[in-house]
Amino acid sequence: MVSVNNTRTSLKERCRVDLGYPYHLNDSPAEHLAALQTLYQSGKGPSAEELETKITEIFGKPAAMWCPTGTLAQGIAGRIYAERSSKKQVIFHETSHLLLHEEDGYSAAHGLTAKTVGKWREAMSAELLDQDSACAFVEMPQRHSGGLLPTWDDLCALKEHAAAIGLPLHMDGARIWSARPFYNDRSYAEIVDGFSSIYVSFYKDIGAIVGAALIGEKDFIDEAKIWRTRLGASLVDTSYLIADTLRLLDMRLEQMPGFIAAAKEMATSIEDIESIEVSPNPPQVNMFHVLLPCNAVIAEQARDAVAEKMGIWIANRFWSYEGDDVCAMEITVGEKAAALPRHEFANAVKMLAEEISKAQ
Amino acid sequence: MVSVNNTRTSLKERCRVDLGYPYHLNDSPAEHLAALQTLYQSGKGPSAEELETKITEIFGKPAAMWCPTGTLAQGIAGRIYAERSSKKQVIFHETSHLLLHEEDGYSAAHGLTAKTVGKWREAMSAELLDQDSACAFVEMPQRHSGGLLPTWDDLCALKEHAAAIGLPLHMDGARIWSARPFYNDRSYAEIVDGFSSIYVSFYKDIGAIVGAALIGEKDFIDEAKIWRTRLGASLVDTSYLIADTLRLLDMRLEQMPGFIAAAKEMATSIEDIESIEVSPNPPQVNMFHVLLPCNAVIAEQARDAVAEKMGIWIANRFWSYEGDDVCAMEITVGEKAAALPRHEFANAVKMLAEEISKAQ
Repeated sequence: MVSVNNTRTSLKERCRVDLGYPYHLNDSPAEHLAALQTLYQSGKGPSAEELETKITEIFGKPAAMWCPTGTLAQGIAGRIYAERSSKKQVIFHETSHLLLHEEDGYSAAHGLTAKTVGKWREAMSAELLDQDSACAFVEMPQRHSGGLLPTWDDLCALKEHAAAIGLPLHMDGARIWSARPFYNDRSYAEIVDGFSSIYVSFYKDIGAIVGAALIGEKDFIDEAKIWRTRLGASLVDTSYLIADTLRLLDMRLEQMPGFIAAAKEMATSIEDIESIEVSPNPPQVNMFHVLLPCNAVIAEQARDAVAEKMGIWIANRFWSYEGDDVCAMEITVGEKAAALPRHEFANAVKMLAEEISKAQ
Repeated sequence: MVSVNNTRTSLKERCRVDLGYPYHLNDSPAEHLAALQTLYQSGKGPSAEELETKITEIFGKPAAMWCPTGTLAQGIAGRIYAERSSKKQVIFHETSHLLLHEEDGYSAAHGLTAKTVGKWREAMSAELLDQDSACAFVEMPQRHSGGLLPTWDDLCALKEHAAAIGLPLHMDGARIWSARPFYNDRSYAEIVDGFSSIYVSFYKDIGAIVGAALIGEKDFIDEAKIWRTRLGASLVDTSYLIADTLRLLDMRLEQMPGFIAAAKEMATSIEDIESIEVSPNPPQVNMFHVLLPCNAVIAEQARDAVAEKMGIWIANRFWSYEGDDVCAMEITVGEKAAALPRHEFANAVKMLAEEISKAQ
């Protein structure tokens, strides 16, 4: 969740453009509710099964389970692999959400241990796998690496090696929706083939209110549903959240190639600005990082200055995992960023770089 | 969640009166959404903190945490008491939700062991406590006993004994909203005084879409919030659910004395029907059980026959925990049951008893 203090919230709200999450237009609570209400005129709203069936078809797997969060979906996945293998160790890339944003739930709540592998700005790869682990978590695209994907050949090698050593692969596919163009428009089913399970998010790129799914074999998902109840995530009514997801999913997937093209144009528009770096360049999906030569406090002050002067809120968060004097501004392209004229974005980033330069 | 097959759903939907959950009128998704949309016209909707503050004031405790389910709230509570005491054992009444409806999450997910105490139709009491346990869970009112409460004197004795032996008390207060009249309108704060923590539900008697709260000391709730994240229950947006709860809470609490009075009238209207028994009689809260002399399958067939003939759906579920030839029909009074003329309810129960009698 974004945490901003009151002053910042109010500056952010005064901006005419806001590129932070949520990423799409018409995304206020009132607009979600108005759209849902139209859907509900005709009856009771869709069941979770309707969405789950659609998801199994998209990903070519036998079963899927809706659940409220990715933390829940992935904690359950790790736990099931650990129980099945009688191994507690799970392989995580060092940028994994489970290591950074979940209060160590994988360990504290689920009894897993982490084998941390990889380099911050390199995708997961075959040689990082081992057979002493219950499973490997592979985030695709890798969010904290700016949306990095393994090449198709590297992905195939990773799948083959995992199969050869009998290691189950779990995909952290929170943002997998954006991966098809990088893989020459191969289907989602082909991309995830070889993975035993996949988690996908419905609120980030899709823009639904809340929600996620865990996808896999039928026995795996049956077991996951028991854990969903045990962990207190079987909600008495999910129909609003399901309806909102079904309302948006197809539309966002149709929009996605345009968002990715926009991300590439935005990256091109700023790549020559001094002292900053686009990573990866070119972007591989609908997100990328802008690496800034300062700490997050200075970056936020510069962001606020740009907001005051130009009315453009460039980003909510600046990640400072990679050193004291560098931070990563995360740009995710949805309807809002796609609608901003490229030169306005470029001018905002240019001013941001100047503000940072002045502060040092 | 209620599970009904298609035929039953359609019979249920054809009824002009439905006394099953949800308990209130104007409770369709479209009606919730219309009400919420009006609230949201003016801005962003309320924060969880607004509801949490209101709850701390009602219960006279320093802190509260919104969360999506009671299973989550109570799993977290049990876990914290176990960690603090280095004891795994928790005292549960044999009717506890944790023992019956949560796939043994207290054990499988949270590593607790259960000391099961009490008798099915007797409230929790002081002599069932011991100091070898991390805490005692006390459900008030006891749902599977028909909404039974300890007398005020017994409750005071329970609190005193727990304090004397240093045993923390946790209240399963899913339905605590209905307890005040039985205790001479003592405040919620006075009723829960002596309990270290309380869980309350927002969807059952209050009728909000989804939600619950865990209430207690500040350090306890701070710890609980970390567990909420670890367990995957920190939702990216809760404002719809919070808004729905705030919209309904005060209204339902004002309605509650009327619901309880209606429950007593309904019980009186059927207490002389042969072969059935009201439990407890008189009802102590806005719910009661009707004990039927048959198994749940026969009871459901009789319920369906009443629905076909009278258009009244008396109950969703018939609990058969107490023997092969007895089951408990659960009646909870909200707007729907309160609005049904007493003689219609009595006629429906009379026909139900006759149908059961014919089937045997």
